[in-house]
Amino acid sequence: MTKEKVVVIKVGGAVVEDETQLSQLLQDFSAIEGKKVLVHGGGRRATQVAARLGIESKMVGGRRITDGEMLDVVTMVYGGLVNKNLVARLQAHHVNALGLTGADMNVIRSHRRPPVAVKGDAGTSQTIDYGYVGDVDTVDGQQLFQLLEQGIIPVMAPLTHDGEGHILNTNADTIASETAKALASYYEVTLVFCFEKKGVLSNPDDDNSVIPVITQADFDRYRADGTISGGMIPKIENALAAIRAGVRQVIITLATAIDGKSGTHIQ
Amino acid sequence: MTKEKVVVIKVGGAVVEDETQLSQLLQDFSAIEGKKVLVHGGGRRATQVAARLGIESKMVGGRRITDGEMLDVVTMVYGGLVNKNLVARLQAHHVNALGLTGADMNVIRSHRRPPVAVKGDAGTSQTIDYGYVGDVDTVDGQQLFQLLEQGIIPVMAPLTHDGEGHILNTNADTIASETAKALASYYEVTLVFCFEKKGVLSNPDDDNSVIPVITQADFDRYRADGTISGGMIPKIENALAAIRAGVRQVIITLATAIDGKSGTHIQ
Repeated sequence: MTKEKVVVIKVGGAVVEDETQLSQLLQDFSAIEGKKVLVHGGGRRATQVAARLGIESKMVGGRRITDGEMLDVVTMVYGGLVNKNLVARLQAHHVNALGLTGADMNVIRSHRRPPVAVKGDAGTSQTIDYGYVGDVDTVDGQQLFQLLEQGIIPVMAPLTHDGEGHILNTNADTIASETAKALASYYEVTLVFCFEKKGVLSNPDDDNSVIPVITQADFDRYRADGTISGGMIPKIENALAAIRAGVRQVIITLATAIDGKSGTHIQ
Repeated sequence: MTKEKVVVIKVGGAVVEDETQLSQLLQDFSAIEGKKVLVHGGGRRATQVAARLGIESKMVGGRRITDGEMLDVVTMVYGGLVNKNLVARLQAHHVNALGLTGADMNVIRSHRRPPVAVKGDAGTSQTIDYGYVGDVDTVDGQQLFQLLEQGIIPVMAPLTHDGEGHILNTNADTIASETAKALASYYEVTLVFCFEKKGVLSNPDDDNSVIPVITQADFDRYRADGTISGGMIPKIENALAAIRAGVRQVIITLATAIDGKSGTHIQ
């Protein structure tokens, strides 16, 4: 039996915090026919609000250290300011949006990440406590399926909960890929990661050198010959893991190309 | 046919911002059997966050003036900080809570309040623009009914939307009474307003002089003889309006008595 399609789109903070990009995104997202999910970030806005509150943003390897005060900031900014404005604006586009954190309807359960050893310079090792950061345990695909079947469009903030009463800050890419995997039992899922480039490039100096399709075999080859390196490696590994977990395709593309007609398709 | 019961409970900021009162409330709310809705305020926390951000809170007659910056603050505090922490803590009590603003699933539509003439001292009149404040137009009782029938417990923040992409700050008492009215077609609704006194008092100096039941006829008499006066008058008028709109009873009671066994019952 052919499954119905659903698109899960992840947009970062840079897009939702820039009015020109945001209004374009909302228009494009609204124009997508059928079932869809929006997952958003909001890190830059959180950093701004924290700074105005006199709270310093501490980052390690691009990841935010979330102490108690910072947890309040991200709960306010991701769960309130960014999420609710996206929902209100999508409603104006006649998209029946519902803002969700993982705590809402127990949709995403996580556990607090234990302190981890991180390698520093010159072979030193450091233990990092990321604080109130959640690693995802389960996504309730059944609940999301029920919402989608009622014509409701989930708009997901990068916050989860531990089931013991605590909100936890959670990476938006992880929310998107875990949600896509959980929906794969019900739908034919396309997962779109919005990116600052047109896709995965074969030549980092040529913005038009987008690799149109990457399979596991292609990835192994590109990785061996150095075409794909650095931060792109974990991104594609995660995408391939989503494919193995039943997601139909993962697209890495510009926020202005969420219709999936361009970008790199990982299959 | 006998309708199933639902309880709509409104708690103010003073309760949700005090850990002792809050943990008691969550325990009591969780212990209520059957269908229920929680509506919360959060004004004091909003005032605190605004102050830390260097934004002055302007109040007229106890009502907040909501300019653009203050709208961001209440969207963060009501929709994010207060709402999501309540949801996470209720989940820990095995209550399948879902945080909602009026924008979520288009549950409450409002329009921005036009500037209003307010009488000042010595017969002067002043025009007040409350800013981004919403007066409720419609509550989607059908949508709330569907959630409740799925075992989902709505936790409602005092925010609505205008259908044109804007969040609007909305009085939590109004959210509670309009929600109760909208549910009255589907359920036998009890609306509970948590209050700093045990109920409506016949003697303001005696905290135990609670009037157990007030009907329209009682109210007319108490008002004429001066037993009920001041700010209690609009509260009871609103309660009686809810009764006329089909709500079964309205209870005014302490936050520690939401089981409805004490307090003033308006019928």
